[in-house]
Amino acid sequence: MGQERGRVALGIAGVGTVGRGVLELLLVQKETLSKKAGVALEIVRVVDRDAEQKLSGLSNLGGLDVSSNLEDLLKPDVDIVIELIGGTQAAKDLIFGSLEKKKSVVTANKALLSSLGREIFELAQKQGVGLGLEASVGGGIPLIEVIRNNLVANRLDGLYGILNGTSNFILEAMTQKRIPFEQALAEAGAKGYAEADPTLDISGKDTAHKLCVLLGVALDFWPGLGAVYTEGIERVAELDIAYGADLGMVIKLLAIVKRVGRSIECRVHPVMVPERHLLAHVNGAFNALYLDLSCTGPLLFFGQGAGRYPTASAVVADTVAIAGGLARGVYALRPPGSLDGEPSLTSVPMEEIETEYYLRYMVSDVPGMVGKIATALGNHGVSISQVIQKERNEGGERVPVVLLTHKTKERCLKAALKEIYSLGDVLGEPPQVIRIERFAS
Amino acid sequence: MGQERGRVALGIAGVGTVGRGVLELLLVQKETLSKKAGVALEIVRVVDRDAEQKLSGLSNLGGLDVSSNLEDLLKPDVDIVIELIGGTQAAKDLIFGSLEKKKSVVTANKALLSSLGREIFELAQKQGVGLGLEASVGGGIPLIEVIRNNLVANRLDGLYGILNGTSNFILEAMTQKRIPFEQALAEAGAKGYAEADPTLDISGKDTAHKLCVLLGVALDFWPGLGAVYTEGIERVAELDIAYGADLGMVIKLLAIVKRVGRSIECRVHPVMVPERHLLAHVNGAFNALYLDLSCTGPLLFFGQGAGRYPTASAVVADTVAIAGGLARGVYALRPPGSLDGEPSLTSVPMEEIETEYYLRYMVSDVPGMVGKIATALGNHGVSISQVIQKERNEGGERVPVVLLTHKTKERCLKAALKEIYSLGDVLGEPPQVIRIERFAS
Repeated sequence: MGQERGRVALGIAGVGTVGRGVLELLLVQKETLSKKAGVALEIVRVVDRDAEQKLSGLSNLGGLDVSSNLEDLLKPDVDIVIELIGGTQAAKDLIFGSLEKKKSVVTANKALLSSLGREIFELAQKQGVGLGLEASVGGGIPLIEVIRNNLVANRLDGLYGILNGTSNFILEAMTQKRIPFEQALAEAGAKGYAEADPTLDISGKDTAHKLCVLLGVALDFWPGLGAVYTEGIERVAELDIAYGADLGMVIKLLAIVKRVGRSIECRVHPVMVPERHLLAHVNGAFNALYLDLSCTGPLLFFGQGAGRYPTASAVVADTVAIAGGLARGVYALRPPGSLDGEPSLTSVPMEEIETEYYLRYMVSDVPGMVGKIATALGNHGVSISQVIQKERNEGGERVPVVLLTHKTKERCLKAALKEIYSLGDVLGEPPQVIRIERFAS
Repeated sequence: MGQERGRVALGIAGVGTVGRGVLELLLVQKETLSKKAGVALEIVRVVDRDAEQKLSGLSNLGGLDVSSNLEDLLKPDVDIVIELIGGTQAAKDLIFGSLEKKKSVVTANKALLSSLGREIFELAQKQGVGLGLEASVGGGIPLIEVIRNNLVANRLDGLYGILNGTSNFILEAMTQKRIPFEQALAEAGAKGYAEADPTLDISGKDTAHKLCVLLGVALDFWPGLGAVYTEGIERVAELDIAYGADLGMVIKLLAIVKRVGRSIECRVHPVMVPERHLLAHVNGAFNALYLDLSCTGPLLFFGQGAGRYPTASAVVADTVAIAGGLARGVYALRPPGSLDGEPSLTSVPMEEIETEYYLRYMVSDVPGMVGKIATALGNHGVSISQVIQKERNEGGERVPVVLLTHKTKERCLKAALKEIYSLGDVLGEPPQVIRIERFAS
């Protein structure tokens, strides 16, 4: 530190899908990337439990040190630690250990960042080292550094993200092919878009992790996963997708941030989006982030949110940028947060958000029930904008009744749903509730 | 230079639409932006022919020096010159004069950059100062710096840009309302999207300027405007838009770059784009850039390409980034160009590009002419994929005949069109020729 240097030494933890891509890019493009950084980039150590095997087939490895002990990355010969092992405890020890020893850190670990992002930022700033998070959200799409550097004149007013490719693939397959959720999930698995255990993806939790990172970066607001209302796509049915289509809407799993003054709504759940909106056209396993900003107005960023080379692209860009900073001797990590520093933001409890709703009941006695449902909604101040009841039920089988509401508080809707529930078995399973987003701009 | 400093002094040339926005942001957000830069940002001088009048209503002006002489910006008390006067000669003198005096430069001047970008980059690098071009392309959408910094691991394989809001507004109005070009142009004027003289916008020349800047930044390739085939939207007719819709295509004015090895296609013209592609959904006066990159795959960036605050957002982000660099004493301007340095790129002559075509003739004798047109196309190896002939002509009035071709060389098509022309007056006006782009990814 404090003086110009001839090279920057890199240590990589984890040679999985992304780590292997990072290694390849840094080895093959070493010369050009070093020129971009303004300093020679050199990988000095790679740590992985199966490093020897995972490095097979790579040439140009040169004098690279290979180890299975993460602590080897804390040795003095490493300047930047690239953490790609995932998980929490070992990654946490590595990241804090590296920062303590004044090493810069590049990480794709959204789970860790969603809970400890603030502490990691603060320590990196205190130590005067670099911190690269680009790969943690949106894979190959430049988002984090763009918000941190290129939109610095803006206040964030709204954020709407399709941040989980698996969920988007499933919802789109359901929409295009009118197949049930389970079949679409199986297709995602067959195409390699879904893990053996897809819970993290389809439950919305992966999206919530990413939302937490974006909130921290954009607003210096770190509410933690517990403060983000999170609902997955497991209950979205073919029927809802079909009704959505009739209404000119498409169902997407969105991460949503809205700010009103110093209050922040942050939530993850399925949303009906107008068919004319760009987010409705984000297909397959792609990701997109739609921002509403004070100066630029709406912006959208679209691309691949996962995969070896897209994610490696983000890791390498961070690495080159940090190396360039280190080469110039003094590292100044820009603090997170938007225009105002925002010292006193608070999150809005889910009960207090206001939105429009799509409700679907499966009713066995239509003529009697529609009135009762409408009355219960009215009792709680929930105003209905549309009732759709296509099928008449003959012989008592259940048929769908769909109601759309005007904007209302979640609290009022919940109270109305409770009253409707008390009407009894005639309504069958719990209703489908999908929030509708029409977008201000 | 060479040592840390307590403040960075800014001089602004031009207080027009954008300049006023930049001033407002830098004055109102001075404290936060200085914190982001890691150094105090101070506007020391504003130069404009009518500065006094244009500054009316602004508070916080403090000890700001106001002048009508651009040379005052070359005085030693200015560190960064923000050039927002536009035009070429005076802006050129100011930019080169500033760089010569080791001042950093931020500019939105796409016309100047399209012809002198390489020289400006080289001089800035030689002088060890900063250069910010973000505002020259895509208004508030972060593009230039994103390509330069955040996508550094990628080779650019393709670029497709909607870079002129006026043209996009006109084409969309024609599409949505099925109105003729002149009426859509008048609407654009009424809404403030078109200048009194809209030639630069609708002729494609503004888009070509921006394409030149992007080529330089992304590939270190500076062919100059003369090497970019440029065609505007003046001849696009309602009829073509209607046929496009029948074919599932939308007409957009695109800047296109494709690379094959070390050869670069660069061109600007109306294009039929599949309705399912995101670019087909870029509405109104918005801009978008779709990139095809070696690691990330396809990326899209969307937002407002013009206007006071969007463009000011870009200028301020550049200014803050450069000030941050200056504050640390040593400024290292990253060279332009993508992964490989690309020393020997050449542009592909328009005659040699290969694409699919939409052709429309207005024919007064259908039964006779379709065969003759098809024969002439065949004579030159142009293969027809579809012929559409909806109306029968009765009594000799002209009716449209539309032909779609498979991929063919522009040279072959031109030769065929020449042969068809020789068939004489029966074909009326020159045919409409619109290229079709189906996108690889």
